[in-house]
Amino acid sequence: MKIGRQEHRSSAISTSSAETIIVRGKDLCGELLGKVSFTDYFWFLLTGAMPDARQRQVLDSTLVAIAEHGLVPSVQASRMTYAAAPEALQGAVAAGILGCGSVILGAAENAGRMLADVVARSAQQPVKDAAAAVVGEMRAARKPVPGYGHPLHKGEDPRASKLFAVAAEAGVPDKHRAAALAVQAVLPELTGKNLVMNVSAAIPAVLLDAGFPVGALKGVPILARTASLIGHLLEEQARPIGFVLSHAASQAISYDGSVPPGFVAGDA
Amino acid sequence: MKIGRQEHRSSAISTSSAETIIVRGKDLCGELLGKVSFTDYFWFLLTGAMPDARQRQVLDSTLVAIAEHGLVPSVQASRMTYAAAPEALQGAVAAGILGCGSVILGAAENAGRMLADVVARSAQQPVKDAAAAVVGEMRAARKPVPGYGHPLHKGEDPRASKLFAVAAEAGVPDKHRAAALAVQAVLPELTGKNLVMNVSAAIPAVLLDAGFPVGALKGVPILARTASLIGHLLEEQARPIGFVLSHAASQAISYDGSVPPGFVAGDA
Amino acid sequence: MKIGRQEHRSSAISTSSAETIIVRGKDLCGELLGKVSFTDYFWFLLTGAMPDARQRQVLDSTLVAIAEHGLVPSVQASRMTYAAAPEALQGAVAAGILGCGSVILGAAENAGRMLADVVARSAQQPVKDAAAAVVGEMRAARKPVPGYGHPLHKGEDPRASKLFAVAAEAGVPDKHRAAALAVQAVLPELTGKNLVMNVSAAIPAVLLDAGFPVGALKGVPILARTASLIGHLLEEQARPIGFVLSHAASQAISYDGSVPPGFVAGDA
Amino acid sequence: MKIGRQEHRSSAISTSSAETIIVRGKDLCGELLGKVSFTDYFWFLLTGAMPDARQRQVLDSTLVAIAEHGLVPSVQASRMTYAAAPEALQGAVAAGILGCGSVILGAAENAGRMLADVVARSAQQPVKDAAAAVVGEMRAARKPVPGYGHPLHKGEDPRASKLFAVAAEAGVPDKHRAAALAVQAVLPELTGKNLVMNVSAAIPAVLLDAGFPVGALKGVPILARTASLIGHLLEEQARPIGFVLSHAASQAISYDGSVPPGFVAGDA
Repeated sequence: MKIGRQEHRSSAISTSSAETIIVRGKDLCGELLGKVSFTDYFWFLLTGAMPDARQRQVLDSTLVAIAEHGLVPSVQASRMTYAAAPEALQGAVAAGILGCGSVILGAAENAGRMLADVVARSAQQPVKDAAAAVVGEMRAARKPVPGYGHPLHKGEDPRASKLFAVAAEAGVPDKHRAAALAVQAVLPELTGKNLVMNVSAAIPAVLLDAGFPVGALKGVPILARTASLIGHLLEEQARPIGFVLSHAASQAISYDGSVPPGFVAGDA
Repeated sequence: MKIGRQEHRSSAISTSSAETIIVRGKDLCGELLGKVSFTDYFWFLLTGAMPDARQRQVLDSTLVAIAEHGLVPSVQASRMTYAAAPEALQGAVAAGILGCGSVILGAAENAGRMLADVVARSAQQPVKDAAAAVVGEMRAARKPVPGYGHPLHKGEDPRASKLFAVAAEAGVPDKHRAAALAVQAVLPELTGKNLVMNVSAAIPAVLLDAGFPVGALKGVPILARTASLIGHLLEEQARPIGFVLSHAASQAISYDGSVPPGFVAGDA
Repeated sequence: MKIGRQEHRSSAISTSSAETIIVRGKDLCGELLGKVSFTDYFWFLLTGAMPDARQRQVLDSTLVAIAEHGLVPSVQASRMTYAAAPEALQGAVAAGILGCGSVILGAAENAGRMLADVVARSAQQPVKDAAAAVVGEMRAARKPVPGYGHPLHKGEDPRASKLFAVAAEAGVPDKHRAAALAVQAVLPELTGKNLVMNVSAAIPAVLLDAGFPVGALKGVPILARTASLIGHLLEEQARPIGFVLSHAASQAISYDGSVPPGFVAGDA
Repeated sequence: MKIGRQEHRSSAISTSSAETIIVRGKDLCGELLGKVSFTDYFWFLLTGAMPDARQRQVLDSTLVAIAEHGLVPSVQASRMTYAAAPEALQGAVAAGILGCGSVILGAAENAGRMLADVVARSAQQPVKDAAAAVVGEMRAARKPVPGYGHPLHKGEDPRASKLFAVAAEAGVPDKHRAAALAVQAVLPELTGKNLVMNVSAAIPAVLLDAGFPVGALKGVPILARTASLIGHLLEEQARPIGFVLSHAASQAISYDGSVPPGFVAGDA
């Protein structure tokens, strides 16, 4: 059964013969393997071109910024899954990645599209007005403004400031960073709250300034977190805490449904 | 309900305050972000120590070697999943990672454990004898020998040879590489087949020679493929082939069950 | 770190002691196990009440309607994943479920919300006008109308008609079915196409008519497909076609990127 | 690239034309939809034959037995995932299913294979001797004996006893139940522990007695838990506790790595 659109029947990523593997037009073993870093290669897989030093610096800094932040929900889901299914490391990594959603981590893509919109409109008007217009429309449509505010880092998300400093030092253009700051500036008036830029707005700001494709923005936290999840699963092998996490979590929740006559609650 | 072992109640990976994020004892924003590459950081997350230049070179080369090899099954599963559920990039990546199993890609860990066994035994006997003993025991237990033979690269897996060259040039020790070659040498006599080392034996050989933790070996193809999957999903946005793949695949399989009287087959 | 809303700290689904497991207020072993069908129990888990005979009949019919339709993309992704990772049946099932997205199968929930909207508005106006208003607004917002049209069943989706017949025979109310027919009736004028109702509109129509919770609509295809995926994975054990599917699919796609000088294409 | 075995090129599960969908030889809309329960259909998808009343009773009872047991790790992983990624219900269900592994729930298949082994050997010797031999060999190979002992239900797993009673009342043969009891009887002498049969041994015992295919045993807890996960995710929509679970869990784990000079711990 034919489903959906079927007009494309080609790919430009890789082909191979028995002797040679071609990736994006280059000979993997002759031109890439041993010569380029994994970060370079990620950029190359996405775009077909090698990053320059500034682009590499920015991409590396975003991957390092977002990879690890302790026992966040996706790490817990992954460690619990590994404790229950140690035969499948890939399943535990997958469970962790599934938590890179619109509320957590996935905000990077939404924030990136918002910043790109502000940049586009700022061709016609001051960036502050463009930011106010974009945020105003989101508020009117009752959409959340992604990438501002943080449950822990209330004064300043130290990763956001550092990413801006890295991008400035690297010398990439700053249109999207300016847009991110403009959004931050208009938020108090439009929302009544002082919400500071967090890492999920800073990452797309510096990446888009460096020329990273907007459609792959969500891939940056996913790739970064994969590295972190593997670290947590290696630790889980040596000191298993998956079931400890689960037990402690279950203790925080009470059952408030009915019970049959005579039921005596125990340690559930 | 308490499940499983509960003796560990700590983690050594990350902690944070409102101002500072600590990872493996270092200040993320002050000491890591902007200063280290993603490859360095991955090694650091796993081990708590920064890799030296040789270790970085070897790890980068394995990640580049295994990331991309065209429309392999896991890439197809991922692109089909994205075509059906474009609202969740993370789900499509997870579907692809779930195919990094014992038959494909996961062989790297099994091969690594086999090579480590050969190295351990070669303290007492020539490495060739150690290899013969290990392979002989696997054959007796009817276990497959992981990391040798390839459906396409029959003469030589070009990635395996190149990884060995990179490791030699980097100057890391060669015990596990020697073990991998010793296994290759004994295979014809013990299996009756000329099976050449593929990338799934070469990756653990060079990584273990560089001091990479054996329990994280399976994480290398998983991390590498995540980068590749994101590349394929970016291409899928621009030229969707997920349903084309699925339609072509379904045409290769015929239905050989019974049908009710009067049923006329169509284009299923 | 506290993330998100934290005002709820209870659950009404299950509790237990060493002797007794309570589910939704009933003793699992004394009142449910051996006495109720799995379909009853699914309804009970969702709502806390047992379905009556009409509700059970409708829920069973929707689960049977949507479980199996051959080698669809999610089944292929699942069989490929199992071929690569046979150590983790759960991973292959998960890969298949991840393809129950907004484009395929997930349409049931979106269609259900649309039908509920039509029903709500039809308190104030004829259902046909309500349908025209709802569809008109979706068209204006460039949103697709979910649940109409099918790549194979162009004349009529036989599952949709049969589900309506089952619901009528069971005697559940018909407001949502009427809304579904009203939407079908206004589509030619509003879209210029004759799009007949498919199973993804019929399922929410009959389920909402039976009192099924709208927030669980997407769960019906997910649960149904899980049963089907297990059937396919059992067949995959006996006659593996996962890699056959993948090879055939890859043959349908050509590489149109550049190649280095001297590269001779082989059977990739 | 051709991977793995390619000798099978057919499937016997489903085919279709524009008018008709065939499943296992029957017309879905004419012969199945509206006529059979979901439990019947699951058995039919797996085996190609409809269950008789005894088989349906046993399969229903196992699905009801294992579906729900409160905030177990896989449910927590699923609710945390949904809290982070509410756009993808399928991803949250998948994350939960990934925790149906060899340690939790997946034990049903391993226990089933052990019981089948005991039954096979009891053709030649008393079942108690067969059980002692099988368990003795597992102990010698340092393999765990799956399906005995429970963290909460120490005196007796009430689901196991009830499943045996249901199977006896239904009148299915009892060879695998006898094997399960024989294993329980030999455990104290062979392991030094009183380990009572839990639901993961009882499920395969009654299912194999009813003629259920051994290769699909692991699918029973997966299907059952899918129903339960959907129930939990519906509750999560109304009263979100995913992040509450995660916060409580993280509080149970301390960081015991080093910190840079001057770092003052906060509420991480």
